[in-house]
Amino acid sequence: MKNFADTLIEHSIKKNTAVVGLDPDISYFPDFLLNKDTQTTEGICNAIIKFNKLVIDEVCDHVVAVKPQLAYYEVYGSEGIKALEETIQYARSKNIIVINDAKRGDIGSTSKAYAKAFLTNESLSGDMVTVNPFLGSDGYNPFIEVAQENNKGLFLLLKTSNPSSSEIQNLKLQNGEILYMQMAKEINAVASATKGDNNYSFIGTVVGATYSSDAKKIRELLPHSIFLVPGLGVQGGKAEDLAVFFDEKGLGAVISSSRGITYSYCFNKKDENWRNISKEQMAKSIADVTITAKQQINNVRFNTNS
Amino acid sequence: MKNFADTLIEHSIKKNTAVVGLDPDISYFPDFLLNKDTQTTEGICNAIIKFNKLVIDEVCDHVVAVKPQLAYYEVYGSEGIKALEETIQYARSKNIIVINDAKRGDIGSTSKAYAKAFLTNESLSGDMVTVNPFLGSDGYNPFIEVAQENNKGLFLLLKTSNPSSSEIQNLKLQNGEILYMQMAKEINAVASATKGDNNYSFIGTVVGATYSSDAKKIRELLPHSIFLVPGLGVQGGKAEDLAVFFDEKGLGAVISSSRGITYSYCFNKKDENWRNISKEQMAKSIADVTITAKQQINNVRFNTNS
Repeated sequence: MKNFADTLIEHSIKKNTAVVGLDPDISYFPDFLLNKDTQTTEGICNAIIKFNKLVIDEVCDHVVAVKPQLAYYEVYGSEGIKALEETIQYARSKNIIVINDAKRGDIGSTSKAYAKAFLTNESLSGDMVTVNPFLGSDGYNPFIEVAQENNKGLFLLLKTSNPSSSEIQNLKLQNGEILYMQMAKEINAVASATKGDNNYSFIGTVVGATYSSDAKKIRELLPHSIFLVPGLGVQGGKAEDLAVFFDEKGLGAVISSSRGITYSYCFNKKDENWRNISKEQMAKSIADVTITAKQQINNVRFNTNS
Repeated sequence: MKNFADTLIEHSIKKNTAVVGLDPDISYFPDFLLNKDTQTTEGICNAIIKFNKLVIDEVCDHVVAVKPQLAYYEVYGSEGIKALEETIQYARSKNIIVINDAKRGDIGSTSKAYAKAFLTNESLSGDMVTVNPFLGSDGYNPFIEVAQENNKGLFLLLKTSNPSSSEIQNLKLQNGEILYMQMAKEINAVASATKGDNNYSFIGTVVGATYSSDAKKIRELLPHSIFLVPGLGVQGGKAEDLAVFFDEKGLGAVISSSRGITYSYCFNKKDENWRNISKEQMAKSIADVTITAKQQINNVRFNTNS
C-alpha cells in the first residue's frame, strides 16, 4: 500500500534527495531584505517571509523538501509562527514537501496535539515532522498514529549530528549494545510492519551526516526507514561520506543542508560586500549552490551502484 | 548569589509548592465558554483565553506557578500561540510564575533560539522552560546560558511520569548504572556549581510523581536541583508518595497537577450536568480543589520533618 515514504521517493526521483533547511537568521540577511521596519518583530517576520519565498523559488525544482527549523520562528512568538505558516503555504503552492523540524516529544494526548499541529493543522502543518523519542513509545506512538491516519510521515531522532549526541545516544548498555543501535532495532519492528510500495515505512529516522561510520550498521538494522541526514556542509559532513546512507537504488535517505545553501552568498564566498548583493545575485548564489549540491549528492547516490 | 531558584522558593513559601498546568482542551469546557464562534480557530482561541484567565484568577494566590503545555496552543497554529501570549501576560499581571512546558531540545544556535523564545521573548517568554536532554549537553547548555544571563530557570527532563519512560530513561548501562541516575550525576555537577542563596540551582529537573520510589535516590544524587513533579492526580500519582521529593524544610520540589484541577468540575465530580455549570460554579470548583491540593501538599511537605 502506498504510504508517505512512497510520495517522498517519487519526489526524490523527480527532483533529488536534497533537503534545504529554512533557518532564518536576520544577521545573515543582505541589506535589500532589511529596512527600518526590521527593528520590529512584525518587520523581521516580513523579511523572513520574503527570504523564505526567495529560497523556495530557487530550490523548489531541485530538492525534494524544505525543512523549516521551528526554533527560528518560535523565537518571534506568534508573529514568527505566522511567518512560518505563510512559508508553508507558499511551499505547498510550489508542490514541495515540507518537513517541520520541530523535534517535539511528549506523552499521550500532548504528543497527539503536537502531531496534529505539525501534520494536520490547516495553516501550520507540513508533510513530515521530526520527533524526539526520549519519553519512550507512548511519547512517539501518537505521532505515528496521526501520520498513518493522514498519510503523512515522521523522522524519529536516532543519532543526531552534534558532537555531544554521544553522551546519551551512544551509551553502552549492559547487554553490550549501543543505545541508539538498540533503538534502531525497536524502531525497525514498527517500520517493517508499515512499509509501502517501495519497501519503506513513513517512519523515518534522523542520522547525522557527521556519523557516517555508524550509518552502515544503522542501514542494516533499519532497512525500511528513510534517513533524514542533517549536518552536510557547515556542520562538517562531507558529500563523499554519504554513500553509506543510500540503498542500492540510490534511495532511502534525504540529505539536509541549511546555512550552506541559504546563506551561500556569505558562507561559501569570500566577498566581504555580501551585505550589498542584489536580490538577483542572492537568488543566483542559492540556485548555483543548490545545483552543485544536487550533483554532488547524485554522484554519491549512483556511485553506490558501481 | 540570588538565582531563579531563590525566587521560586520565595513564592513557594508565600503561597505553596503546587503548580497548575494550563492544558486547554475545549472538549472539557462548560457550555458558557462555547458559542457559535468556537467553530473557528479564532473562536476556540478566545475561549481558551477566557478559560485560562478564569483558572489563573482562582489559583494565583494559592500556587507557585502555572504551567502552560505548549502542544495545546501550538495545535491551533499562530492563533494558539497568540492565545498563549495573552495567557502569559495575564499570569504576569497576577504575579504568578510561568513555566513554559515546551520540552524543547535541539543543538547550538537552535537551542539558543528556543531558549530565547521561552525565556526572553517579550510576549511569549515565561520564567522557566522544560528541556529535553536527548541531544546531550551541547543541546541543553544554551538553555542554561540564556537562563543564567536573564535570571530565569529551567527543568531538564530526567525521569518522566509516563509508563514507557523506562524504555530509554531506565536502560541499564554497562557500568551498572541506570541511565537517568547517571544523568542525575552529570546534572549535579552543573547544579552544584550554580546554587543560589537557598542552596538550589536554577537548573531543575523533571521527576514524575508516579516514580516516587526512585525519587529518594535522585534527591540524594541531586541535592541542589528543584524537582518539577508532574503526574499527581489523573496520571495516578498520590499525595502521600510525594514526601520523598521534598527536603527537610519542605522545599526543593514543586508539584504539578493539570486536569485534576482545571477540569475538577467534570473529573472529580459525578455531576453529569457539568456542561451546564455557571462561571461561578466552575470558579468555585477550581478554587476548592486547589485549596484541597495545597493542604494535601503542605501536610506531606511538613510531615517530612516529623
